[in-house]
Amino acid sequence: MVKAAVLGSGSWGTAFAKVLADAGTEVTMWARREELARSIAEDHENPDYLPGVPLPHGIRATHDAAVALNGACTVVLAVPSQSLRENLVEWAPLIGDDVTLLSLAKGIETGTLMRMTQVVCQVTGADPSRVGTLSGPNLAKEIAAEQPTATVIACPDSNRAIALQAACATKYFRPYTNSDVIGCEIGGACKNVIALACGMAAGVGFGTNSVASIITRGLAEVTRLGVALGANPSTLAGLAGVGDLVATCSSPLSRNRTFGENLGAGGTLESAQEAAHGQVAEGVKSCTSIRALAEAYDVEMPLTDAVHRVCHEGLSVQGAVHGLLGRRHKPE
Amino acid sequence: MVKAAVLGSGSWGTAFAKVLADAGTEVTMWARREELARSIAEDHENPDYLPGVPLPHGIRATHDAAVALNGACTVVLAVPSQSLRENLVEWAPLIGDDVTLLSLAKGIETGTLMRMTQVVCQVTGADPSRVGTLSGPNLAKEIAAEQPTATVIACPDSNRAIALQAACATKYFRPYTNSDVIGCEIGGACKNVIALACGMAAGVGFGTNSVASIITRGLAEVTRLGVALGANPSTLAGLAGVGDLVATCSSPLSRNRTFGENLGAGGTLESAQEAAHGQVAEGVKSCTSIRALAEAYDVEMPLTDAVHRVCHEGLSVQGAVHGLLGRRHKPE
Repeated sequence: MVKAAVLGSGSWGTAFAKVLADAGTEVTMWARREELARSIAEDHENPDYLPGVPLPHGIRATHDAAVALNGACTVVLAVPSQSLRENLVEWAPLIGDDVTLLSLAKGIETGTLMRMTQVVCQVTGADPSRVGTLSGPNLAKEIAAEQPTATVIACPDSNRAIALQAACATKYFRPYTNSDVIGCEIGGACKNVIALACGMAAGVGFGTNSVASIITRGLAEVTRLGVALGANPSTLAGLAGVGDLVATCSSPLSRNRTFGENLGAGGTLESAQEAAHGQVAEGVKSCTSIRALAEAYDVEMPLTDAVHRVCHEGLSVQGAVHGLLGRRHKPE
Repeated sequence: MVKAAVLGSGSWGTAFAKVLADAGTEVTMWARREELARSIAEDHENPDYLPGVPLPHGIRATHDAAVALNGACTVVLAVPSQSLRENLVEWAPLIGDDVTLLSLAKGIETGTLMRMTQVVCQVTGADPSRVGTLSGPNLAKEIAAEQPTATVIACPDSNRAIALQAACATKYFRPYTNSDVIGCEIGGACKNVIALACGMAAGVGFGTNSVASIITRGLAEVTRLGVALGANPSTLAGLAGVGDLVATCSSPLSRNRTFGENLGAGGTLESAQEAAHGQVAEGVKSCTSIRALAEAYDVEMPLTDAVHRVCHEGLSVQGAVHGLLGRRHKPE
């Protein structure tokens, strides 16, 4: 039986721990707070992030990372992207030499502009061949409700990718393997910015055509960035690109889409943040790193640039729309 | 000034005639019924297909194809895919030798399994270099309301593609050029079948992840078919593939999506047809031709096959879902 540690007990870490357990994998979760670990272990519920979802009784939980990591041959990293490094510094000495590391974090590290698996390799010293990433149209609440979905697991070592696939395949969760880690990570990191743009268009009152056009042209610019970094364009046309983008841009559960809608309807950054219970949408922060990455690789990303200018340079949404539509006509 | 004839006065032909006129092109529309031609010419409205939308006063209309075609250097074909051939047989003698032909029809001809531009070339004798196709996330009602969208115009002759682009570029309609006619046509022909599948999933009660997964895996199988026929995969990742697919699969205006929802909610083909005011959704018919084309080129299309089995072989939607999720695990 495969033994996995899931480090992080947010909604996605918890839903993925359930998927692993349902697939027959032995799972120990780690939560920073002792009380949350106890709820998961004893009440089989995560009241903070997935209230009302009964978790498999086989899932163990601890607030001691050493306990969670003991004997684990697969380590799932499920903490927010900007805190992955500081957590890994703590955990690195506890992680075995041949362990497979699987990142669920989506983002580009602020400042270093590194992808999440790059951070993992740098901090743990792991060879890239044993570091994978998982991405796709995977809204945690729907997976917790066992609604069918597909995902992609990318790892340079195809045997490890296949082992991870087997460790999480259930009747409602269908994983596909891929070797293109860069493509999967870029898709996941960029989608929130495009979802903000879709939300802005919807907030202005535009319809399905406009949103579908933004998704498609967003995909085109994300693919350009991915290819410049070494990704395979077909990865971006797959579950980690199109799939995640479509889910994030069309779901009423998406915070980025909703945040963009508030801006498009005339709200300020402050009022949109207030409507989001004080939270700034992820895309508002990540558009800065992504734009910097695009500049470093000389890639044109007009939508990301427009979102950045609306969020951080005072451009109006109307001004952004006119700027985008007024660009020179060109081949697709 | 460019002179264009738009042959066909349905909602899309009418909306596109408005786009052309707004872009400064001189437009004459053809409608089969004299009364409809008179409404368009004199009342500047198409009461049957776009009621309430004021059309530019410059648009002329006639029920005599010879009048519409006289002097036109661009001929836009805007009749339903399965009646394109019979119409063209009538029009072919009236079409000039150097005219650019632009197909708006989306589909695969029943029986011959030909794409629309193949039908155009066969019936008119035109060289493929002067036959183009236009496709993208282009719901007619939203374009009539001047909500921004993008589209792709594919023609083997890049000069003709650029001339068509200039003839229809407005502040709300942004055309991109492409040389891949096959990719554009396959995207447009296959999307209705995938929209039916998305509707079925939504009708069963599945959420955003499931629909996004179907869109993505649908795109993968449509791309496989396109590539087998000679298309460039990047075309399917563009506006005529992803863009049109996302718009059709997510719009409440999409008949195919709604039809699939009725089937997914337990309806029969008959009751779904009744709910659609007696109309059978396009995908119900086209899944047969597309499956035949896939078989002829030995391409695996599991979603199209499942839709065909639900619509024509009595498989239940639940049975189709289980069949799709129970397939062997594989690379993306």
